[in-house]
Amino acid sequence: ALAAPALAQSQPTLNWRLASSFPKTLETVFGAAEVFSKRVAQLTGGKFNIRVFAGGEIVPALQVMDAVQAGTIEMGHTAPYYFFGKDPTFAFDCAVPFGMNSRQQTAWYEQGGGKQLMREFYKDYGIINFIGGNSGAQMGGWFRKEIHSLKDLQGLKMRIGGYGGRVLQKLGLVPQQIAAGDIYPALEKGTIDAAEWIAPVDDERLGLFKVAPHYYAPGWWEPSTQFSFYVGIKEWEKLPKEYQAAIEVASYEAHVYMQAEYDAKNPAALARLLKNGVKLHSFSKEIMEACYKAANEVNEEEASKNAKFKKIYEPWKRFRHDANQWFSVAEAPMQNFMITHK
Amino acid sequence: ALAAPALAQSQPTLNWRLASSFPKTLETVFGAAEVFSKRVAQLTGGKFNIRVFAGGEIVPALQVMDAVQAGTIEMGHTAPYYFFGKDPTFAFDCAVPFGMNSRQQTAWYEQGGGKQLMREFYKDYGIINFIGGNSGAQMGGWFRKEIHSLKDLQGLKMRIGGYGGRVLQKLGLVPQQIAAGDIYPALEKGTIDAAEWIAPVDDERLGLFKVAPHYYAPGWWEPSTQFSFYVGIKEWEKLPKEYQAAIEVASYEAHVYMQAEYDAKNPAALARLLKNGVKLHSFSKEIMEACYKAANEVNEEEASKNAKFKKIYEPWKRFRHDANQWFSVAEAPMQNFMITHK
Repeated sequence: ALAAPALAQSQPTLNWRLASSFPKTLETVFGAAEVFSKRVAQLTGGKFNIRVFAGGEIVPALQVMDAVQAGTIEMGHTAPYYFFGKDPTFAFDCAVPFGMNSRQQTAWYEQGGGKQLMREFYKDYGIINFIGGNSGAQMGGWFRKEIHSLKDLQGLKMRIGGYGGRVLQKLGLVPQQIAAGDIYPALEKGTIDAAEWIAPVDDERLGLFKVAPHYYAPGWWEPSTQFSFYVGIKEWEKLPKEYQAAIEVASYEAHVYMQAEYDAKNPAALARLLKNGVKLHSFSKEIMEACYKAANEVNEEEASKNAKFKKIYEPWKRFRHDANQWFSVAEAPMQNFMITHK
Repeated sequence: ALAAPALAQSQPTLNWRLASSFPKTLETVFGAAEVFSKRVAQLTGGKFNIRVFAGGEIVPALQVMDAVQAGTIEMGHTAPYYFFGKDPTFAFDCAVPFGMNSRQQTAWYEQGGGKQLMREFYKDYGIINFIGGNSGAQMGGWFRKEIHSLKDLQGLKMRIGGYGGRVLQKLGLVPQQIAAGDIYPALEKGTIDAAEWIAPVDDERLGLFKVAPHYYAPGWWEPSTQFSFYVGIKEWEKLPKEYQAAIEVASYEAHVYMQAEYDAKNPAALARLLKNGVKLHSFSKEIMEACYKAANEVNEEEASKNAKFKKIYEPWKRFRHDANQWFSVAEAPMQNFMITHK
């Protein structure tokens, strides 16, 4: 039997700050950080208190990584592809165009060597990372006009972030970086022609359907989007073992929570959108194929000049191939049967 | 800020026993209980020690529920449909023919009201339940001869458990209950014509491909199979809050671990099986449609005479419908594109 250590009675009271990249209104993503923080407090008898701040409250939404790296805050919760501009390698911890679905991404990360590879990468930023949720396959966004062919992408101004934007640029689209709150007026005025955000439950809040009623699927640039908890390595190393364990295990609960929230709430949100006149479309086969080809080119180009990217890309690509092979046998046929029978 | 309670220093040392329904060789399912136990110990500085026993070690594999109910052991880890014979309602905490996929099941359970409904049901057994893993869509099992039409199911003797067996019985198949270790000799001698087990990574160990080379998909009776941790309510209520939190949160880690294990290991296991001459088949459309119809009949029959079943079946059915509607928009099209491109 294990001996009972004297540790428990001498645990320190700690007050940490966690900066989220997201607004409080996103009960999906922001909510996951709250679930995490609540659990850590509960596990430690209230001694380890991690206060969660919304994007912009103490750190700008897109500078969460920098703030953890600098030691300004102890923790962050973010979508790592926001830091794609620093290094596209961050995308493997989040979403890659035509990448893995939610379960495959989790499997690669937890049991397929992904976590080890990403942790090595994050060391250079003084960060240790923990899996922190997934949205599942995202939507392809809101368009003012229908998009039938590649021609329609020419010169199209679209609010789309990092990696997806880089792929679409190859096909003549003009990607724009616009913060969530500014998307609606930009679409309304016609400054942009299209905008992508997340999935029905989050998209509904932005009200984009009122000014761009054509809602496309799937969001191939985010076949699943994994979120991450960041902890400064220096702070991490100072923690008692029980507190480290509390952070690690609570991140799994947040991971389960977020995907379940999206899966439970998206159906009703989509139904409401359709009632409000939203027109649902699928990207044409021509567009999907061209985007897939462009995405592979962008990946290969990056791998040829970025050793850190290449080191993760190669095993990631093999895992994706094998995972899809297996999913084609039982999971996808079962799913396809059920969506026609419900 | 939260006050630091005096609790931590006075936490008791507890030694609990957890009976798994599975053999130690299943690193997927048995492994999840070990991950759980290890984490609980770590979170409590080794004071809360839950020892994991394999199926049959201290409790027969299929009597784990009874043992927790009787208070012989404090915890169990099992596939609740094993108790289908006591009440088919157990299946909603595990697998229902043509039920939900792994993500949908988790979403229903965690954010769709499923957990509350199941906990109410389990109260009558003196048990509180926690989500404890999923296998994903299972395989349709091993057949000595090819199965083309409904005719081929007539009189076919197949090792298949509870709910799936009851559905197939409607179509003339003769279901058999056989423990894992006895399947191989029964197939070899021809005492049975077919047998289902789990998925490539587990099936490979049983070696069934040597005596029944036709491997069918999908296992529509288990579109996903959720596992459960059971705790005796009386023992649960005596626990300090931190220990309760440790059990609850560690169950989420085990949940993530098991699905990731299956998803990471099945591809290579399937590849090895194919190398060994296994012939992969899909159930024909005729068979799938007839089984779907029979499954609905069995569900409706049960609902008409079992109030506990009906109470969960109705909201479960609505959730399944809505979830599949939503999955048909982004998730399935994305998955279908990827399995043809990999």
